Amino acid sequence: MTVKLYFAPGACSFVPHALLEMAEVPFEPALVKLHKGENLTAEYKAVNPRGQVPVLVDGNDTITQILAIVHHLDSRFPEQHFLPTDAMDRTRVLETLAWMNNTVHPTFTHVFMPHKFATTPEGQADIKANNAKLYAEMLAEIDAIALGAAELGEPFMAGQHFGPVDAYSLVLLRWGGFAGIDPTSYRSLWAHVQRIAELPGVARAIERERLQLNLYKAA
Amino acid sequence: MTVKLYFAPGACSFVPHALLEMAEVPFEPALVKLHKGENLTAEYKAVNPRGQVPVLVDGNDTITQILAIVHHLDSRFPEQHFLPTDAMDRTRVLETLAWMNNTVHPTFTHVFMPHKFATTPEGQADIKANNAKLYAEMLAEIDAIALGAAELGEPFMAGQHFGPVDAYSLVLLRWGGFAGIDPTSYRSLWAHVQRIAELPGVARAIERERLQLNLYKAA
Repeated sequence: MTVKLYFAPGACSFVPHALLEMAEVPFEPALVKLHKGENLTAEYKAVNPRGQVPVLVDGNDTITQILAIVHHLDSRFPEQHFLPTDAMDRTRVLETLAWMNNTVHPTFTHVFMPHKFATTPEGQADIKANNAKLYAEMLAEIDAIALGAAELGEPFMAGQHFGPVDAYSLVLLRWGGFAGIDPTSYRSLWAHVQRIAELPGVARAIERERLQLNLYKAA
Repeated sequence: MTVKLYFAPGACSFVPHALLEMAEVPFEPALVKLHKGENLTAEYKAVNPRGQVPVLVDGNDTITQILAIVHHLDSRFPEQHFLPTDAMDRTRVLETLAWMNNTVHPTFTHVFMPHKFATTPEGQADIKANNAKLYAEMLAEIDAIALGAAELGEPFMAGQHFGPVDAYSLVLLRWGGFAGIDPTSYRSLWAHVQRIAELPGVARAIERERLQLNLYKAA
């Protein structure tokens, strides 16, 4: 079975990208240039009508949505323990992932693409400013999760195994730089992200996407 | 173990509310009046610091986020088959649920509470109009899912068992009325929602929340 991942550098598609690299499975990485609108072509919409990344193609199955892709990768590669097997531990990971996916991520979208939400320059500036503030508060919540894991002596955000919460945290903290937020100000989270960035699989995904972790520029 | 559900009438907390009623388990329904700001009191924030519904308290565990609560209820009441046991079928349900939760639901939030996203009346009107249009397109996607299930002769959106996609569809279609969208124009979805509303458990949840399914008022 061929596994193919459609991803865009720096996008949330980094989550399955890092998981696939950590699992050391052969897969075909398909880079989609969002800034060139490649996600809006007829060719790409035949893959994903919603024009978004990530998309995972596994044999005859085409899967969208981070949470669904993560669930699929966990089923396919159970030895990686991407999701905890204990039901309540798994519930906790889904709780954090769902929040990152339905709240933190969309808040950043308002900062990064305010034109999607307002037509006037004033309206866009308003949306950008409000949401950058909210986003900083949300990163503080993720920082607290990283601190909690560190205090328990756990190497990863959800315990003993690298998983989607770690990868998503890296993406979200990195995006903070675009929102004018200094990632190093979240000490536990920044330390965690720097550490997981050195895992060989994560490092390969970072290299393929050519990501710089700290995008913050002091004003 | 005591199960307690914090819910608000008509909110997305209807999803676990309907599942609990369908499972016929005793639980304590705790009504939170969002319009009176009861979700923002110190007392409620001690339950959920983010001030949102739903919250499920099961013994010593307090769980937020629809997707996590659904996963928990499925683990607790496996005989209800709220989520499919087949891994790929489960991936598909998570794919739809995640999209409803991270895209359809937040789009409605922009229609219903534009003041959360813009400070000026013009900006708010702009956000409301743009998102009502997007929301109508998303309901059409859900309508297509309902049509697909009907064509396969399946009684529920995800197959043979009532589940979270059915309950969320009811909530999202009902919200359309607030966005100036006539729910009856989505023929398959409206037929499906009317049918599941008559299931005894769903009907009990509707009655407790005093929901009217069609809120549309012609202009």
